[in-house]
Amino acid sequence: MKHSVKTSWKQDMVFESDLDGHKLIMDAPEAAGGKNKGPRPKPLMLASLAGCTGMDVVGMLRKMRVDIRGFNIDIEAEVTDEAPKHYKKIKIIYEFSGDDLPMDKLEKAVGLSREKYCGVSYIYKQVIDMDYEIRIRNQE
Amino acid sequence: MKHSVKTSWKQDMVFESDLDGHKLIMDAPEAAGGKNKGPRPKPLMLASLAGCTGMDVVGMLRKMRVDIRGFNIDIEAEVTDEAPKHYKKIKIIYEFSGDDLPMDKLEKAVGLSREKYCGVSYIYKQVIDMDYEIRIRNQE
Repeated sequence: MKHSVKTSWKQDMVFESDLDGHKLIMDAPEAAGGKNKGPRPKPLMLASLAGCTGMDVVGMLRKMRVDIRGFNIDIEAEVTDEAPKHYKKIKIIYEFSGDDLPMDKLEKAVGLSREKYCGVSYIYKQVIDMDYEIRIRNQE
Repeated sequence: MKHSVKTSWKQDMVFESDLDGHKLIMDAPEAAGGKNKGPRPKPLMLASLAGCTGMDVVGMLRKMRVDIRGFNIDIEAEVTDEAPKHYKKIKIIYEFSGDDLPMDKLEKAVGLSREKYCGVSYIYKQVIDMDYEIRIRNQE
């Protein structure tokens, strides 16, 4: 199977990608010569990771009949000071809310995504120091 | 320096990331239990790569006083059949248009991005077989 993404330069630092018909504008922030018309390219690596592992986890929890009410994925990544400026460390916080959530099943779903299913994690973890945490948010 | 991306699950396979204030919806295609409300997560790895190397190249060509009229980046990636389904091979085509473009300068700018500046390429090329080509589009 192949994935294709076509990207065209619009002006200045603005680029537009076509992702299976979905348009995505990228731009540099003002400090880097752009006009901040869209996200910077590098953090899209983190959105890709969040979506990949998130969809795995939602799918597995559904199969395990674990009923979650909310689910957030917060990613923080450390960037090197020297070029090529890249992510050297990524921390992912998986935060769930719901009634009486079973931590063992949450851990199992997250672990299977990280170790077996998520093809984005698979690439990053060979180069980047990856760490994670699972939290259950207390109901207010 | 740190980059943070917060992502929240909306419903079904729909996730929304906040990238420095820019919202990005991701979804699975219908064949994978989604409703195709946004791009799939994995190809965002390719948009990230295109934007990263594209901004490098535009910035360097400007410094070299090379005046391009158009610039497209087409990326094709082969996905493995087995889980974790990941990109095993990526081909990038850099296509430029403009008057009397100097191929040596285009090659230099692309090469510097790939070898020295692009922090997205830096990660991927350690795991994925990466190949590229530079084309100058003939004027019609």
